[in-house]
Amino acid sequence: MAEQNAVPVEASQSLPERPKDDASAAEDGKKGPSKNELKKLAKEKAKAEKAAKIKAEEEARKKEADANDVSKADYGELPMLGSQPYTAPETKVERVSLAQLADKYSTTEPDENADIVFRAEVENARNQSAKLAFLVFRQGLSTIQAVVAASDTLSRQMVKFSGSIPSESVVLVTANVKKPFEPVKSTTIQNLEVHVKKLFIVAKADAQLPMQVADAERPIPAEGQEEQQADDGKPIVTLNTRLNNRVIDLRGKHNHAIFRIKDGITLLFQEFLRSKGFMGANTPRLLGAPSEGGASVFEVSYFATKAFLAQSPQLYKQMLIAARFERVMEVGPIFRAENSNTARHLTEFTGLDMEMAFEEDYHEVVTMLEELMLFIFNGLRERYKKESDLVRSIYQVEDFKLPEAGKVPRLHFKEGIQMLRDDGVEIGDFDDLSTPDEKRLGALVLKKYGSDFYVLDQFPLAIRPFYTMPSAETQAAYDPKNPNAGYSNSYDFFMRGQEIMSGAQRIHDAAFLEKRMREHVTPVDSKSDGLRDYVNAFRYGCPPHAGGGIGLERIVMLWLGLPNVRLASLFPRDPSRLLP
Amino acid sequence: MAEQNAVPVEASQSLPERPKDDASAAEDGKKGPSKNELKKLAKEKAKAEKAAKIKAEEEARKKEADANDVSKADYGELPMLGSQPYTAPETKVERVSLAQLADKYSTTEPDENADIVFRAEVENARNQSAKLAFLVFRQGLSTIQAVVAASDTLSRQMVKFSGSIPSESVVLVTANVKKPFEPVKSTTIQNLEVHVKKLFIVAKADAQLPMQVADAERPIPAEGQEEQQADDGKPIVTLNTRLNNRVIDLRGKHNHAIFRIKDGITLLFQEFLRSKGFMGANTPRLLGAPSEGGASVFEVSYFATKAFLAQSPQLYKQMLIAARFERVMEVGPIFRAENSNTARHLTEFTGLDMEMAFEEDYHEVVTMLEELMLFIFNGLRERYKKESDLVRSIYQVEDFKLPEAGKVPRLHFKEGIQMLRDDGVEIGDFDDLSTPDEKRLGALVLKKYGSDFYVLDQFPLAIRPFYTMPSAETQAAYDPKNPNAGYSNSYDFFMRGQEIMSGAQRIHDAAFLEKRMREHVTPVDSKSDGLRDYVNAFRYGCPPHAGGGIGLERIVMLWLGLPNVRLASLFPRDPSRLLP
Repeated sequence: MAEQNAVPVEASQSLPERPKDDASAAEDGKKGPSKNELKKLAKEKAKAEKAAKIKAEEEARKKEADANDVSKADYGELPMLGSQPYTAPETKVERVSLAQLADKYSTTEPDENADIVFRAEVENARNQSAKLAFLVFRQGLSTIQAVVAASDTLSRQMVKFSGSIPSESVVLVTANVKKPFEPVKSTTIQNLEVHVKKLFIVAKADAQLPMQVADAERPIPAEGQEEQQADDGKPIVTLNTRLNNRVIDLRGKHNHAIFRIKDGITLLFQEFLRSKGFMGANTPRLLGAPSEGGASVFEVSYFATKAFLAQSPQLYKQMLIAARFERVMEVGPIFRAENSNTARHLTEFTGLDMEMAFEEDYHEVVTMLEELMLFIFNGLRERYKKESDLVRSIYQVEDFKLPEAGKVPRLHFKEGIQMLRDDGVEIGDFDDLSTPDEKRLGALVLKKYGSDFYVLDQFPLAIRPFYTMPSAETQAAYDPKNPNAGYSNSYDFFMRGQEIMSGAQRIHDAAFLEKRMREHVTPVDSKSDGLRDYVNAFRYGCPPHAGGGIGLERIVMLWLGLPNVRLASLFPRDPSRLLP
Repeated sequence: MAEQNAVPVEASQSLPERPKDDASAAEDGKKGPSKNELKKLAKEKAKAEKAAKIKAEEEARKKEADANDVSKADYGELPMLGSQPYTAPETKVERVSLAQLADKYSTTEPDENADIVFRAEVENARNQSAKLAFLVFRQGLSTIQAVVAASDTLSRQMVKFSGSIPSESVVLVTANVKKPFEPVKSTTIQNLEVHVKKLFIVAKADAQLPMQVADAERPIPAEGQEEQQADDGKPIVTLNTRLNNRVIDLRGKHNHAIFRIKDGITLLFQEFLRSKGFMGANTPRLLGAPSEGGASVFEVSYFATKAFLAQSPQLYKQMLIAARFERVMEVGPIFRAENSNTARHLTEFTGLDMEMAFEEDYHEVVTMLEELMLFIFNGLRERYKKESDLVRSIYQVEDFKLPEAGKVPRLHFKEGIQMLRDDGVEIGDFDDLSTPDEKRLGALVLKKYGSDFYVLDQFPLAIRPFYTMPSAETQAAYDPKNPNAGYSNSYDFFMRGQEIMSGAQRIHDAAFLEKRMREHVTPVDSKSDGLRDYVNAFRYGCPPHAGGGIGLERIVMLWLGLPNVRLASLFPRDPSRLLP
């Protein structure tokens, strides 16, 4: 292979040369040329000589120009970093961040003579004239305008080079910071611009990208809307195209904001629970048997046998309570083999899980979880306002209405049903809520209590998993002919009328647990491989405990009002997507 | 099924009554009794009457005693919490923690008249006499002696009940704190004991457990050593038995310490990197194609197709760098389908991963990683001394020798080879280190530099993955006939002579990456499903970057000197273990 002969470092520095047009005429065969052919050849020879002369003159001009290029050492493409000892002109010079720059000069005047050095991406570059090029540089959420102006110390060649850098290339810049004549409208930093002195390409982007970052920064089309032009003539790129080109898509500033916020939620979750004595745990994702119902579990080839991917850390976090850890939390991937291609389902998502022993009443845990959620919401407001505002400037959504501390609406399931009935919904006492009913109830709660966040408590026993503790009144009214009647010590948390967390008190007594396993709507075998150790854990003395699991992507989606949960996953997985 | 008729709450409260002996004689058939038989019947009747009388007297005595039991309301089994409105005698009374108690009274005298209330586990209980029972209560890493002494206000019945509570039961205690006559040797809190006033069982443990927590708190037997008695006559429980009964095993105090430390490492990792601007990310575990070599990857049935479990977040964290996130970290499960049943291998472990763009030299990243590791080690020393000491009291190991900040030994691979050769090892310039060689080199480095932690830099190109950046000198000396010769910008970090982290500068140029993919010792197809998007990411302008991945369980093992990595996993997975 020809490329194997190239010195590796060159691969990034220059495109392979195109084969030169062969100027000599083709020799079709052995027979001599005709008169016409001779005439033609002479003509072509003259043409070629003329071309060669022009070319030689051009080269001489270029050589002279290069010799006269005062900026020769101040621009160009750097060799691939790591490929040779570092040779950039600004070695060991401290790099500045654009965000810090904006902060620093938000109130004071910039020092226009100080050189600053930074690495950035080129959002766009254009040659205004032979003497002037404009670029926009980006770092994270910050963009700034750059001016490259020809002068005694800056050549036209450098201006031309600068204005021709492909968008999305990574560059190393030395510049002065100045105040622009008027605020720059198209950049996030509007009261500053940089005047370029040196400009090197660190990593060159292809001239043609499969999609533009600017297009990724516009809302995804509504469901059913095809890829087409919007009213303003700009293209609307479908979600599918974006996800197929996720690396470019993720460069969108709103996407950076989304994933900063997502990380912030994890941080706030851990911060709050650690302050309450929770220990982070890592429970297995590979299970020897499907433990929570076999329907939506992924099967794994495991040497000579099979394994199954965890649908939640439920049984394991409970076993940790039985192992005396008292308060445990876990952040980790959750796998659900549900063949649902909706805007709300992923086959792999991030679970924020917690479980704790309590003293007297599982509402101790509900209260803790309410406080946790308020801590997260208020933390997002305080620490991630800029990011939230940025995303909401694209996906317009009402600000999230929060209740005061200690005043989270907590409704008995009965009360929720009654509110729906009063609103005209026909629904049975113990029916599970449909998605539209959930949204409707969310709207009713918002109207009545002024909160986008509320808790529905005491769900019907029949619609909860086997490990859920029946409520006291349900146990008192136990009827062996109808063992799943009544309510349970379980709860869902809702944001904007959509469930974000499910939780419950769990049965901590082995004999009673076995009984519930037999009597459950979908009976399970307490002696099966996947459940035996779990049930046994409660024979060894286990404190009463409750907990819950939060779908991280769902909170991100609902906090920001995103139209699709895939937008809250870096590389989303659904039944038809495993790439990239 | 009979159990279905029981009121659920009773399941935890009492064992089913045994069938009473039938006192009436058997009627064998229709024929009349013989003389002997009549005599026998009369004798039996008299015996039965006598027994009935004795029983009646006993019951009367018991009734009287119960009536006279001054402690009647102060002990017993509580109904299952959650099964009825909370009825324990100490409702809404603040619970104390034993650890706080020990802190509080470490210098001052306890207030002997103040009642304290707490939930704890019974480590053991025994009746010293009819008037005196001793128990040991436990909470987490703390144990305290409890005295139950008969008095005018505390009945012998209560003493008997207390001394008979099965070990590992969960209890609710009201007590006074006193100074013991002499320090208690068998508990962690030695200068205090509690005098019990009320004692309720919250969750009763089975009388016979499959293994004892105390046995779990002894070292695992050496490899090859069978389950048997140690010299002191106590049983040695094998690792396998412990893992089969992991919930009881995990109750061991040293296990609590191990997993607190493990969580501490994660916390310190995140704390340090967040302070340096790293963002936490969640990359997928389900991949559409095996991306890093197909040999040790688990295959998943994914609807109509197949998926593969991530062997690392390598390609994804690099794609996030290409997506402009600059500095990313991830804590998550890693899956390796290696059929290795050694003390060092798990099929599922926790990866602490990081990746960052750098400015001039990948050693910027090496330095950051060295600082990270020192931050973790020093953090463990400062914050987890008690836990480390506790584990090391069981698994005796030398304290971990740390270098000063900025003085982490960083050896060129050449230097490592030379040290081994000087020590008599026969090894080629570019050979990979065997595990014994690694340990030997660790010992040599410890001797020479006084550090259990060091970095080996510039590994041979041929033994690193395709995405590793060849070193500058290697690129300069490129020979197409031997494209994998020379060194690379890659490093391993070692603790006690065992590798804990692998990392490198990655190739950030698509054309060069494709070339390396073709020329690698094990060539890979850059156009395959699993790699196409990854390679394309570097066509869009990606900054130079490097990173690394740490095996969390391995650090825990090596920090504490554990003899088996399984001891650092809550529920370890290996080729022959998927349960519990």
